[in-house]
Amino acid sequence: MISKVMERLENLYEEMVEIRRDLHMYPELSFEEVRTPEIIANYLSDLGLEVKTGVGGRGVVATLRGNKPGKTVALRADFDALPIQEKNQVPYKSTVPGVMHACGHDAHTAIVLAIAKALSENTEVLEGNVVFIHQHAEEQVPGGAIKMIEDGCLDGVDAIFAPHMENYHPVGSIAYRSGPIMAASDRFEIDIIGNGGHGAFPHHTKDSVVIGSQLVTNLQQVISREIDPLKEAVLSIGSFHSGEGYNVIAGEASIKGTVRTFDEDVRNSIEEKIKRIVEGTCHAAGASYKFQYKRGYPATINHEQETEILVESAKDLLKNEQIIEIPPNMGGEDFAYFLQKVPGSYVFFGSANPDIGAIHPYHHPEFDIDEQVMLYASKILTRTVVNYLQNYA
Amino acid sequence: MISKVMERLENLYEEMVEIRRDLHMYPELSFEEVRTPEIIANYLSDLGLEVKTGVGGRGVVATLRGNKPGKTVALRADFDALPIQEKNQVPYKSTVPGVMHACGHDAHTAIVLAIAKALSENTEVLEGNVVFIHQHAEEQVPGGAIKMIEDGCLDGVDAIFAPHMENYHPVGSIAYRSGPIMAASDRFEIDIIGNGGHGAFPHHTKDSVVIGSQLVTNLQQVISREIDPLKEAVLSIGSFHSGEGYNVIAGEASIKGTVRTFDEDVRNSIEEKIKRIVEGTCHAAGASYKFQYKRGYPATINHEQETEILVESAKDLLKNEQIIEIPPNMGGEDFAYFLQKVPGSYVFFGSANPDIGAIHPYHHPEFDIDEQVMLYASKILTRTVVNYLQNYA
Amino acid sequence: MISKVMERLENLYEEMVEIRRDLHMYPELSFEEVRTPEIIANYLSDLGLEVKTGVGGRGVVATLRGNKPGKTVALRADFDALPIQEKNQVPYKSTVPGVMHACGHDAHTAIVLAIAKALSENTEVLEGNVVFIHQHAEEQVPGGAIKMIEDGCLDGVDAIFAPHMENYHPVGSIAYRSGPIMAASDRFEIDIIGNGGHGAFPHHTKDSVVIGSQLVTNLQQVISREIDPLKEAVLSIGSFHSGEGYNVIAGEASIKGTVRTFDEDVRNSIEEKIKRIVEGTCHAAGASYKFQYKRGYPATINHEQETEILVESAKDLLKNEQIIEIPPNMGGEDFAYFLQKVPGSYVFFGSANPDIGAIHPYHHPEFDIDEQVMLYASKILTRTVVNYLQNYA
Amino acid sequence: MISKVMERLENLYEEMVEIRRDLHMYPELSFEEVRTPEIIANYLSDLGLEVKTGVGGRGVVATLRGNKPGKTVALRADFDALPIQEKNQVPYKSTVPGVMHACGHDAHTAIVLAIAKALSENTEVLEGNVVFIHQHAEEQVPGGAIKMIEDGCLDGVDAIFAPHMENYHPVGSIAYRSGPIMAASDRFEIDIIGNGGHGAFPHHTKDSVVIGSQLVTNLQQVISREIDPLKEAVLSIGSFHSGEGYNVIAGEASIKGTVRTFDEDVRNSIEEKIKRIVEGTCHAAGASYKFQYKRGYPATINHEQETEILVESAKDLLKNEQIIEIPPNMGGEDFAYFLQKVPGSYVFFGSANPDIGAIHPYHHPEFDIDEQVMLYASKILTRTVVNYLQNYA
Repeated sequence: MISKVMERLENLYEEMVEIRRDLHMYPELSFEEVRTPEIIANYLSDLGLEVKTGVGGRGVVATLRGNKPGKTVALRADFDALPIQEKNQVPYKSTVPGVMHACGHDAHTAIVLAIAKALSENTEVLEGNVVFIHQHAEEQVPGGAIKMIEDGCLDGVDAIFAPHMENYHPVGSIAYRSGPIMAASDRFEIDIIGNGGHGAFPHHTKDSVVIGSQLVTNLQQVISREIDPLKEAVLSIGSFHSGEGYNVIAGEASIKGTVRTFDEDVRNSIEEKIKRIVEGTCHAAGASYKFQYKRGYPATINHEQETEILVESAKDLLKNEQIIEIPPNMGGEDFAYFLQKVPGSYVFFGSANPDIGAIHPYHHPEFDIDEQVMLYASKILTRTVVNYLQNYA
Repeated sequence: MISKVMERLENLYEEMVEIRRDLHMYPELSFEEVRTPEIIANYLSDLGLEVKTGVGGRGVVATLRGNKPGKTVALRADFDALPIQEKNQVPYKSTVPGVMHACGHDAHTAIVLAIAKALSENTEVLEGNVVFIHQHAEEQVPGGAIKMIEDGCLDGVDAIFAPHMENYHPVGSIAYRSGPIMAASDRFEIDIIGNGGHGAFPHHTKDSVVIGSQLVTNLQQVISREIDPLKEAVLSIGSFHSGEGYNVIAGEASIKGTVRTFDEDVRNSIEEKIKRIVEGTCHAAGASYKFQYKRGYPATINHEQETEILVESAKDLLKNEQIIEIPPNMGGEDFAYFLQKVPGSYVFFGSANPDIGAIHPYHHPEFDIDEQVMLYASKILTRTVVNYLQNYA
Repeated sequence: MISKVMERLENLYEEMVEIRRDLHMYPELSFEEVRTPEIIANYLSDLGLEVKTGVGGRGVVATLRGNKPGKTVALRADFDALPIQEKNQVPYKSTVPGVMHACGHDAHTAIVLAIAKALSENTEVLEGNVVFIHQHAEEQVPGGAIKMIEDGCLDGVDAIFAPHMENYHPVGSIAYRSGPIMAASDRFEIDIIGNGGHGAFPHHTKDSVVIGSQLVTNLQQVISREIDPLKEAVLSIGSFHSGEGYNVIAGEASIKGTVRTFDEDVRNSIEEKIKRIVEGTCHAAGASYKFQYKRGYPATINHEQETEILVESAKDLLKNEQIIEIPPNMGGEDFAYFLQKVPGSYVFFGSANPDIGAIHPYHHPEFDIDEQVMLYASKILTRTVVNYLQNYA
Repeated sequence: MISKVMERLENLYEEMVEIRRDLHMYPELSFEEVRTPEIIANYLSDLGLEVKTGVGGRGVVATLRGNKPGKTVALRADFDALPIQEKNQVPYKSTVPGVMHACGHDAHTAIVLAIAKALSENTEVLEGNVVFIHQHAEEQVPGGAIKMIEDGCLDGVDAIFAPHMENYHPVGSIAYRSGPIMAASDRFEIDIIGNGGHGAFPHHTKDSVVIGSQLVTNLQQVISREIDPLKEAVLSIGSFHSGEGYNVIAGEASIKGTVRTFDEDVRNSIEEKIKRIVEGTCHAAGASYKFQYKRGYPATINHEQETEILVESAKDLLKNEQIIEIPPNMGGEDFAYFLQKVPGSYVFFGSANPDIGAIHPYHHPEFDIDEQVMLYASKILTRTVVNYLQNYA
């Protein structure tokens, strides 16, 4: 029976390509999606599913009920694009200046829509229900996930899975991980408020360039001395701006950075540590400061059992060497919020193919995928859904 | 006899005011002076002096021969303006947008022109000759002085004096110093060339914010450890710019600063020390760099005897408390080059008067002077010239 | 049949205690062991085993052949003591001033000797052979393991296991880990060679306190910026000594530290990074230096299959909650070398018992164990050996 | 008449040598002087002077009244020795192990005694009175000067002069300076109280080596940024000690240093600045600290008129090139306290003579002088005294 669904997905490949390319040509920024959710909603409605739109803002959620009662498993596809000018020369190149599907969300959408069609035509394979969660605004904090969850998109859901394209592995492979897979990603801003003046009279000033430099140097010790060496954490200063020209001692410095962690305690402690070091360094220099720490997405932590189900399902289609366990990724992802509510697994599908130039990492202006990844992903996720409902009823 | 000259200068006060205000309304930037040298040359020609124009570019030099043979003493007045938008609301406000006589060169010019007129009408007081050096382009390195000297403006000159307005002291006072009075003023630029990357992957980068911060910190030791504590020196970083936003580790940092010194050996050694610290710091971080050290004017070092003559001459007109010995000033001045060739003295004339708002430092958009300073300055400098020729023949 | 061996071990408990206490009273430092290997060799000879002494220096190796042919599995027990003055008040307190079995090697020895006796009396349980490796000098780099291996102690050995006491877990538990369990532990020494002088004349010196302080600060970036955040590493400066008194600027500084890693590439890269930072920092200050990096033991990396066998064997005797998977330990251990040659597993046996004061960590002058740990350890290791030979023939 | 006194001093040269060598052989440490003040008091009593002993502890003061009434001028000679083991091989080598007149106080004493004798035999040259102040304990803070002044040694004194030997200039020269000649010399101690621990677990510690290193680095900015570049100041860390060995993170660090200044405001501000930087740096690291700032002698500031009298008096005996104006010396001296009460001048007498090995700086175990310096010094100081009384009555 499952083989029939697999066959159907193969037939749907051209349609996936078509959907993906259409979305690719008309990308929409986070929290500004209009056309995309409309297309999705229409497609799912045409399948006869119960469709909710405007979920948590702009999300679209559809439920497919299987022939037999059972658990409910969800698939999540995000559908927003990025503020990047596409540099690919392809027929389906973005038509919107400065906006691009450079993170594969066009493909995620096509994959999940195709699965919805294939399964809705073959509900006999489903010992339970499937929820298709099409999420807006993954790329921009606070993201669409929180509001969609608040709006009930996970009600009754027992497990959830989400695909992501990536070009670190060749098409036809999956990169999985149980436990932390994507980091918590926070931001901070520090304004040092010293006291400017003539370059020849430092004693009348509080030199913000020097104070900022000390601060950057001191902040290195958060990672080198204050965090358990067995716990992953990164603190990077992305920018330091202070002063104009040569002769005038700067009265202010602006310092911005990011913190990536997997452990919530480590995350909390780093915010406090930065604050303490800013305080102390500014006190030492007789300066004052403003400090803002802005929490981004929490760590995305895959559940062991669901990851196992996914990997087992992949084994039906892939060879062992195509199923790759990866270390955690320091990037952030708001799928994290779904996994805080229900068990599940976030998985990368290798989409690289050097022969067609699909080699650039996501968020790159030349990012593109080998579209065959959509067939692999749709088949593996479908099997995962079917297996989950069969075996964990 | 000298009293007759003093009287004449009093009569010329209105003319000084007129000249100064006219120049103030039509300021010209360094190396772009056209109208100003023309006015000066015409004025001096009308006095029947030998006038050379285009000296060293745009300078004007006139020689007045006294009745008796003797030494030759020069007076120097600079005449360029600054790229500053005047904020004073005065009838003689600058008419040129973004250009302003914010350093008193208009007054310097008026003072020396009036002296030329008064002395040329009373050559019997001169036991020797006087050279009037009107210099273009003092405000911008390399300045006009070097070229004027190369062009012969000091030929035959035995001593030289130069006035400067300042509002740190009240009108009716002079601020003098034997030995170093204005610092050598150099600039440097350091570009750190690291290697940028994603904020979550520092090990793939060479973090220019961190390297630059270490560099700024390390550079503090030039002054704190490597320079004789008895020799004055300042090293200030005026600006530090690196990176954009939060998440991306910066691949480059731009650092600019200034060095002020009085001793030529200290000056030379600091250039080497900065270079050595840049080299070492970048090597430690595995980064490369560009380093440029641009020499500005050397230190202005007044000669003891000439300063004494000037101070003695001032005593005829001022009370002791109006004659103020000052510490060296960390600013720079290309009168330095004249003093490298012939002995002389550079002197500040207090031009402040709170009652009329003459309180702002030079280079300030509201800089203005109590114009009475021109009478004081013209009298004291005239006496200095006369005394010098009388007593040091 | 195995139950008979278990029973025998219970009978041997008193003997284990006796052996352990005797060794405890007469501890011998690394590379100075005489009495201990003699006792071991005699014990093993008395069992009728083939015994080699002086293996790799002072090691003792005995082979027990089972009734059936098969693979060969080794057990390793280290037997040296530490230069620590015992502070316990027990009847079996160390009689050697300043030397103490503060790391449980006395117990390791007793455990393995008892296993040798129990198995040699019951060779019918062995489908292969067992090698008992009693190693000298584990506590002091370069350790006894390398030489024993060179001397053939692993010849014909297919797998190896080693016990270690620890008081982080209660007696009756094991703390295991597949993969890296103990870190590579290296040392370094940096001598900064500046130039001393009078505290009032810093410009005649190269201030070693300041240079050393910069170096320590700069070294923080090895961990914070240059190592993959997903790879564990620690760089700690243990000591910094420079100068005498207040007034004299120090000409030298001595800095010593340790590096702990699990990944050999990270380990190699850190040595290079430290060198580069020392070079650059000293160049920046015009100073020279001596740098020595002394490799200690490599990381101890347990093999997956052997660890699994051990854990399975433990399950026969312990409850699940007594079998604890632990994170890697940053300490070092020369059992690492055995595991580079043959597969195996290093395992901690919880020996804590607050009721009898067995709470202090190893290397503590009050370290002691609940001796019941020896019964647990001997039983679990015996089962491991028997299972291994049975199932992996 | 003065020529008669000069002649007498020449006759007294042998006696000066004798006195100086005797004191040299029996040196006494600060606050432990017994024999020396006794010898001095006896000598002065024998001259028939009014002698006070035990002044301010161990000082000796004698007054000589001139034939005519007038002002009162004082000469100060310090008489304590240093805790240094003499390395000279001379007949008059110190007989006291570890104690040495390595700062020329033996000569100072001999000079002033000889002057007392010469003048007491020729009171007709004195238009006023002379006070001979023999001070104990100059070498050790708080010094003997404060207590002697409290005890009245300056009562009625109008001016004071003090000689000091030095080998930076040849015998037969004086090195003088009006204004600041010796720096204020303070000490400080900082104990950083972090939290020690195992080198592999930095996150459980507050690493005192790292905190101390940051502190030393931060302290550089006191001089480089916070002090007027025109005001001399030095801050040197003399020692940094923290930790033992390689592996253990240090819980404490001990940092000691010195501050040298000439300006009392600068001096006061530096104490506060250090405190602020210690506070801030420790706060940034979550550590605590102890901070002690111990004031040494203030700056020794010569008075203009008295220095001029001394220099004029020297001109009668020396050529111009033997009278050398020197920059301020960063060393400290408790003659400073006398100059806070009455005007005066502290002057160095060149005592170097390479032919006899008199080349080492004071406080050196091979320090020795060309004893001819005593003749020069006694003559010049005598003329200074006589001139002062004659001309400033």
